Amino acid sequence: MKMPVLEKALTYAREHHEMFLSQLQDWLRIPSISTLPEHRGDLLRAAKFVEEKLREIGFSDVEVDTSRSHPTVYTERLGLEAPTLLLYGHFDVQPVDPLEAWTRPPFEPVIEGDNLYARGASDDKGQAFAIIAALESYLKTSVELPVNLKVLLDGEEEVGSKSLHAFLREHAEKLSADAILIADQDMLDPKVPVIMYGVRGSLSAEIEVTGPAHDLHSGIFGGAVDNPLNVLVRLLAQLQDGETRKVLIPGFYDKVETLSHEERALLGQAPVTDAVGLHFTGAPALGGEQGYKLYERISTRPTFEVHGIVGGFTGQGKKSVIPAKATAKISTRLVPNQDPNEIAERIEAYIKEIAPPTVRVNVRITGRARPVKVDHTSRPVQLAAQAYEKGFGYKPVYMRGGGSLPIVREMIDVLSVPRDNVSRNKIPVVMIGFGLPDDRTHAPNEKFHLPNFYNGIETIIHYLDLFGGA
Amino acid sequence: MKMPVLEKALTYAREHHEMFLSQLQDWLRIPSISTLPEHRGDLLRAAKFVEEKLREIGFSDVEVDTSRSHPTVYTERLGLEAPTLLLYGHFDVQPVDPLEAWTRPPFEPVIEGDNLYARGASDDKGQAFAIIAALESYLKTSVELPVNLKVLLDGEEEVGSKSLHAFLREHAEKLSADAILIADQDMLDPKVPVIMYGVRGSLSAEIEVTGPAHDLHSGIFGGAVDNPLNVLVRLLAQLQDGETRKVLIPGFYDKVETLSHEERALLGQAPVTDAVGLHFTGAPALGGEQGYKLYERISTRPTFEVHGIVGGFTGQGKKSVIPAKATAKISTRLVPNQDPNEIAERIEAYIKEIAPPTVRVNVRITGRARPVKVDHTSRPVQLAAQAYEKGFGYKPVYMRGGGSLPIVREMIDVLSVPRDNVSRNKIPVVMIGFGLPDDRTHAPNEKFHLPNFYNGIETIIHYLDLFGGA
Repeated sequence: MKMPVLEKALTYAREHHEMFLSQLQDWLRIPSISTLPEHRGDLLRAAKFVEEKLREIGFSDVEVDTSRSHPTVYTERLGLEAPTLLLYGHFDVQPVDPLEAWTRPPFEPVIEGDNLYARGASDDKGQAFAIIAALESYLKTSVELPVNLKVLLDGEEEVGSKSLHAFLREHAEKLSADAILIADQDMLDPKVPVIMYGVRGSLSAEIEVTGPAHDLHSGIFGGAVDNPLNVLVRLLAQLQDGETRKVLIPGFYDKVETLSHEERALLGQAPVTDAVGLHFTGAPALGGEQGYKLYERISTRPTFEVHGIVGGFTGQGKKSVIPAKATAKISTRLVPNQDPNEIAERIEAYIKEIAPPTVRVNVRITGRARPVKVDHTSRPVQLAAQAYEKGFGYKPVYMRGGGSLPIVREMIDVLSVPRDNVSRNKIPVVMIGFGLPDDRTHAPNEKFHLPNFYNGIETIIHYLDLFGGA
Repeated sequence: MKMPVLEKALTYAREHHEMFLSQLQDWLRIPSISTLPEHRGDLLRAAKFVEEKLREIGFSDVEVDTSRSHPTVYTERLGLEAPTLLLYGHFDVQPVDPLEAWTRPPFEPVIEGDNLYARGASDDKGQAFAIIAALESYLKTSVELPVNLKVLLDGEEEVGSKSLHAFLREHAEKLSADAILIADQDMLDPKVPVIMYGVRGSLSAEIEVTGPAHDLHSGIFGGAVDNPLNVLVRLLAQLQDGETRKVLIPGFYDKVETLSHEERALLGQAPVTDAVGLHFTGAPALGGEQGYKLYERISTRPTFEVHGIVGGFTGQGKKSVIPAKATAKISTRLVPNQDPNEIAERIEAYIKEIAPPTVRVNVRITGRARPVKVDHTSRPVQLAAQAYEKGFGYKPVYMRGGGSLPIVREMIDVLSVPRDNVSRNKIPVVMIGFGLPDDRTHAPNEKFHLPNFYNGIETIIHYLDLFGGA
């Protein structure tokens, strides 16, 4: 009886591509930008949209938790003699600026060839919707799913999932599961699926330099005071070496894990060549930390990035201003076993040490995420490799992610495996995904490769089948 | 007969403070921002406003030249057996951002106590209007002015007076005069008028760093490429030494004139103490080039300033972006005998030399002004000292200006003294002004000290009288 259930679900999925795509487009039309307070209403609309959809396919009790700054959606179907899987995705999206760089409006999804263009198409509404489509494919063709299921959809992933962290802690018992499956990442190309067994952490901060009491005319006062922008660029330049690209904050590398030969070999199997890097970035030349291969630099090594500098005059034309204040938005990616709290203290202490007495400096920490590395040999992870092969026709490679998913660390720490009194807090996490490196997530003209959407739905259908057979 | 003319003019000026102030406010309501193309119509309105005013007080033939990017206003009254004076002021103003820092709307002039608050109140509509009020005071009380007069009002001073440069070259013969009087600067305080016998030059540029072909997610690509913002802050940090604050561009100081002991002594008479500098800037401590006194650093020494950095994410919240491009708006102030064209070449060569091969760099020169130093012992300059003493009741100090007035250099080069076939191109330039150091020109909450407005009108009335008596 088991085979027919799987076959029926796969057939349903294949016969409803157009419907799934149309519903995904409706979801993408909602500008659920979590970083911008003015989009709070849209976030709620995006949550309600998926609540409605889950109810419609057979989840009778769907909770939209709005008790915190950002909404969380949760539902479950339990009661089977089967293992329990927790599925995770997110429905919030990144801001769209610079808007003028979009060749199609970001919230008017459009299909061109094999691609669907819209903010959130790949990160992560498209991937989250693949989960929902997989569930629908089972529930419209069979009475039950092959597993006990918990579904958790995050409305705050792009800004650190604080609301979900609280939700997790409040409902730790209820959310316990035998494994967690997350679909929120890229494959290397449509023929190279990726199993991610770690993610970098991150620390985001704003470095603010205050000088004169008000903006000054550089003709009248130029030479009298230190310009906060001049000081700020000097401070920032002292955070990274221009040759080695090493971060210059004292003690920054103290706890960075050294890669074993085995792990280097495993990671080295992924076809992440310099040519691939140049292709996907379009940069004149690759950069990054000296002494490491590209795939190590983007996943196992920490970084330092300046994301934007506020202050002075940035409009068209020119203005001879010495600004009263200048602020840099920066972040570092962190790797095992760096601790964002410790790094935050080190950055703050270093900046205060090197700042001149002609200005006041202030370091404001705006985000912290701890790095994660999980056991890639665990059974739930190995089943994902089988599901990928069935869904896409290709074996996956094993990688560690360069981005940060604070919620992964949090779930590992907070949730437990039911009936497991021995290894509490060691819940296996499986990270898969159907994006592509040229999807331009977080950038203008984001897109999602539609064959990956459809193969992704089938991969999840297979995973549920395999996981249920455990 | 001469004394009564002067007395009548002074009396008229004193009796019409309110009217002059009200008319100035009308002029200030026009947002004639010359840096922003969307304000072209306002610039023309400001020109028409003053055209009307000049006609009304007795200049029958007023020309508003609109044949170039920015308007120029010119009029004259000649035919007397007297020397000829050319008066200069400007009616364009700086942009107003950050708008939220204004406690009163910038184009709704308001009087509080002794101050008139508005963009352009001090720089330069208020000072230009003092000239017009002085002319009115003569023409409404006598048949003629004490001198042959030419009046030139610039609509492009804040962006380099390119249109006026062309106007000057086209009408060099017509504009010839025995001296030029410019009112566009600050006094040190209401009791310390200033005669400016030089101005710094300047060079403005945009340094653009281009990296990846499009914005990238710092999680996915962080470590793979050099972030254009990271590279840009390193380039900028290499343009100025953080300790000595010396500009690090090779050859930058090669042609800088060394101050004589005499000139240091003359400049040292101005009460520009560190306490004064701290008071007017509100900075935690003064900065600037090591080894020089404050009054030297702000007038006789070159500087380097970053005015703004464009690129990445500068909105509220945060965004993990590696921008495709980052651009810095910078300028340097130049002193005799630095040549902006040579400095432009040096900056460009240096930037290209120190830029890494992981990015493309482009240096776009956006403004050039040559420095000026004039003979402060010339008769027209010495008469200004007498006029100040009569208008304000205090002797002036002699200083060199920190800002740039490209038009001064241009007038010296292009215009000539009529009937002077010997020393062509040595037209004496007299620089006076009625602003104050805390007027916040180019910054939010610009204001003009009204007693200076009224004493300024009288100073110009006296200057015309003294100059005519030559």
